[in-house]
Amino acid sequence: MADLGPNEPLIGVSGSRNRLTTPALVLDLDILERNLTALLDQCAESGQKLRPHAKTHKSSQLAKRQIDAGAVGVCCATLHEAERMAAGGASGILITSPIVGEGKIQRLQILNDVADNLMIVTDNLDGLQTIEKSLRDVGGELTVLVDIDVGMQRTGSNDPAQIVALASYLSESETLTYGGVQAYSGRVQHIEDYGERRDVYGAQMTFLAGVVKSLEDAGFQPKIISGGGTGTHHIDQELSLFTELQAGSFIFMDVEYNAVDLANGPTNPFETALFVQCSVVSNNADNFFTIDGGFKCFATDGPKPEVFSENLPDASYDRFGDEHGKINLGSGNYKPALGETVSLITPHCDPTVNLHNYYHGVRGDTLVEILPIDGRGVL
Amino acid sequence: MADLGPNEPLIGVSGSRNRLTTPALVLDLDILERNLTALLDQCAESGQKLRPHAKTHKSSQLAKRQIDAGAVGVCCATLHEAERMAAGGASGILITSPIVGEGKIQRLQILNDVADNLMIVTDNLDGLQTIEKSLRDVGGELTVLVDIDVGMQRTGSNDPAQIVALASYLSESETLTYGGVQAYSGRVQHIEDYGERRDVYGAQMTFLAGVVKSLEDAGFQPKIISGGGTGTHHIDQELSLFTELQAGSFIFMDVEYNAVDLANGPTNPFETALFVQCSVVSNNADNFFTIDGGFKCFATDGPKPEVFSENLPDASYDRFGDEHGKINLGSGNYKPALGETVSLITPHCDPTVNLHNYYHGVRGDTLVEILPIDGRGVL
Repeated sequence: MADLGPNEPLIGVSGSRNRLTTPALVLDLDILERNLTALLDQCAESGQKLRPHAKTHKSSQLAKRQIDAGAVGVCCATLHEAERMAAGGASGILITSPIVGEGKIQRLQILNDVADNLMIVTDNLDGLQTIEKSLRDVGGELTVLVDIDVGMQRTGSNDPAQIVALASYLSESETLTYGGVQAYSGRVQHIEDYGERRDVYGAQMTFLAGVVKSLEDAGFQPKIISGGGTGTHHIDQELSLFTELQAGSFIFMDVEYNAVDLANGPTNPFETALFVQCSVVSNNADNFFTIDGGFKCFATDGPKPEVFSENLPDASYDRFGDEHGKINLGSGNYKPALGETVSLITPHCDPTVNLHNYYHGVRGDTLVEILPIDGRGVL
Repeated sequence: MADLGPNEPLIGVSGSRNRLTTPALVLDLDILERNLTALLDQCAESGQKLRPHAKTHKSSQLAKRQIDAGAVGVCCATLHEAERMAAGGASGILITSPIVGEGKIQRLQILNDVADNLMIVTDNLDGLQTIEKSLRDVGGELTVLVDIDVGMQRTGSNDPAQIVALASYLSESETLTYGGVQAYSGRVQHIEDYGERRDVYGAQMTFLAGVVKSLEDAGFQPKIISGGGTGTHHIDQELSLFTELQAGSFIFMDVEYNAVDLANGPTNPFETALFVQCSVVSNNADNFFTIDGGFKCFATDGPKPEVFSENLPDASYDRFGDEHGKINLGSGNYKPALGETVSLITPHCDPTVNLHNYYHGVRGDTLVEILPIDGRGVL
C-alpha cells in the first residue's frame, strides 16, 4: 500500500475526481485558498493576527500553507497534533489545552527543543509548576498563556484572582515566560442567529475585558490575547479584544457552520471546500440506495451529512451503520447506477477529518495532490 | 515516534496500566480470551462454526488469534479491512458488503491472489458480472455468497426470484463458485429485551428459511449460511439455521451491548474487555472535572461512555468537544487530582476502535503488549 493510499495513481489524471476509490475525503484547493485569503484579508483590516486551529485539518502541509499565506502559526488541541505539525515544519504552535501527566511532559520537553516559538496554556498552578520543574531540569524555556474560562467551563480559570496569580507566577519564573492569555468559547460558535450569538458572546467578552483590566492593573498586561473561532470571527473583529484569532473550520466549512449566519448577512464569507465522495454499492430498492459511507466515514456528533451532488437535489442521507449510508431519493431524482459517485458535505468537519487518512486535493474535476492527515489519532 | 506509540516503553513494566499516556484504548487480554472461548464453546455445542467479524477490532493480530483459537476465518466489512487482515496473515476472509467500482475490483483481483479462502457477497447481477469478467481476465477464481436482505434493507436482496437467479448464475460460472448465502440483520442486534428481539428476529429468520427452501427446491442448496451477531447469537444457536456465526462485538462488549439481555437471563455470557483510559486535565470546578477524551476518542453514534473507575461509582460522562469529556461527580465521589486516570467503557466499540491507532493489551495492572489497529481507516 502506497503512503498516499489507493488513489495515488490518479494524481494529475484529467477528470480523475469522479474516478476516486471511495469513501474519499475530497478537498477543493481553490475554495480552500479563497477561504484562507478571505479571513487573512479581514484580519489585516481589523489589525489582528491569525493563528488558525490545526485541530480542524490535522495536516502539517496545510498548516505550513496557512503560515506561508500570512498566519503567525497554528493552534493545536493536543500535544500529539503539535508534535506532528512541528515534525512537518510548522512554527508558532500554540497548544490550546493544558498538558498534564508524566509521559506528556517528557514529550513536551522534547518538542520544545525542536519546535520554533512553541507556546502552551495553563489553568492550574500545580500543573504549571510540574511543567516548570521538568523544563528547568533540562534547561528549557517556554512561553505560557493563562487559559481563561469565559463560560464554557471546559478548561481555563474563571477566577480573576487565580488568573492574576498565574500571570504573576509566570512573570517571576526564570524558566517560563508570561505570554498573555487565551480565552476560547466553544458552544457559542454554533449559535445560528447572529444577534443571539452576539448577545451571549458579548457578555463573555465583557467578562474577558474585565479580567484583562485586572491583569493590567496588577502589572501583567497580556501581549497576546488569543481566541475566537469561525462562528465568532466577525464579532471578534468588531470587538477587537483579541490580538489574534484561532478560527479553524473556516477553511473547510461543514453542515453545522453553513447553517450559522457568520457575518450578519445573507451570504457567508466562506464556501464549502471539503466533501466526502462515496459510491453506490447497493440499489435494489426503488426509493433509496446504499452508499459506502457510514459511522466510520462521517462524524456523528452533530447533524447528518448533506448530499451535494447536482443530480440529486432533493436527496437526503440517513445513517445505515458503520460503513454504509442510505440515500433517500427526492421526487424527480433519478436512481444512480452501482458504482456512481455521490458527494456529501461533512456534518462536522473536525471529527470527520479525523476518521480519514488522506485529503484528495482537487482543482476542478482533477485530483492534483494527496495530503496525508498526519496529525490524526489521539496519542 | 515508535510504531507502537508513546506507551511502548511501558510494555512489561509492572503496574504500568495506570501510567499510560492517555487517551489510551486498553484491552484486557484475559477477559478477551474468556469471551472468545465462551462463544467458541457455545458454537461447538450448537454445531455451528464461528467466523467473527473483524470490523469490530480491525486488528490482524486479533484476527489470527481468533482463528488460532478455532474460528474458521474472519468477516470484513470492507475491502480495505480484508487487505489488512490478509496482509497480517488472516485466512478465511469473508467480505460482507458488495464490492463495487473499478479501483476496488482491481484491488480485489490482487487480494484474491494472495489471500487464502477469500469469499465475497453479491446482491446484484450487474455488479457480479463486472467482478466475474475482471477475474476471468486474469484467470482468477473466487467463491461468492448471495447476500439476502431479511429486513435491514441496507444491502442484499429480499426477492427470492432474484436470489435464486444469482445462485443459478454463480453455479454456472467457470470463474465464480456458488458458496451459499449470507443474511445479516443489524438493528435487531441491539433490541434490549430478549423476547422482543426473539420475536422480531424470528420473523426475519422464518423469511430466511423460506428463501433457503426456495434455493434448495431449485437445486442450489447453500453449503454456507452465514450471519448472526452478538445480539442474536443465543437465538442463532437455538434456531440453528446458520452454518456459521458472524458475531464480532462479543470479544469487547460496550455500553450498548451491556444493556442487551443477550442470553435470556440475568447474566450476559461476555464481560467488558475494552476501555478508554483518560486523564484529568482540568479540575478547577467543584462538581465536575475535565478529561482528555472527546469526539475524537469515543464514538458518538450511540450512548455516552460509562465511567468504570471503582473510585467514581456515581460519576457520569458528558460530551465536551473534540478532545475533552466532562465527568460529573456523584454524591460522595472524591475529586481526582490533575493527571489521575479515569477508565471508561466504550459506548459503541466498533467505531470507537476506529478512532484509535493501538490496543494497549493489559493483564491485571500491567501493559503486556501493544497491538496496532492496522485495519483502521476507510480506504
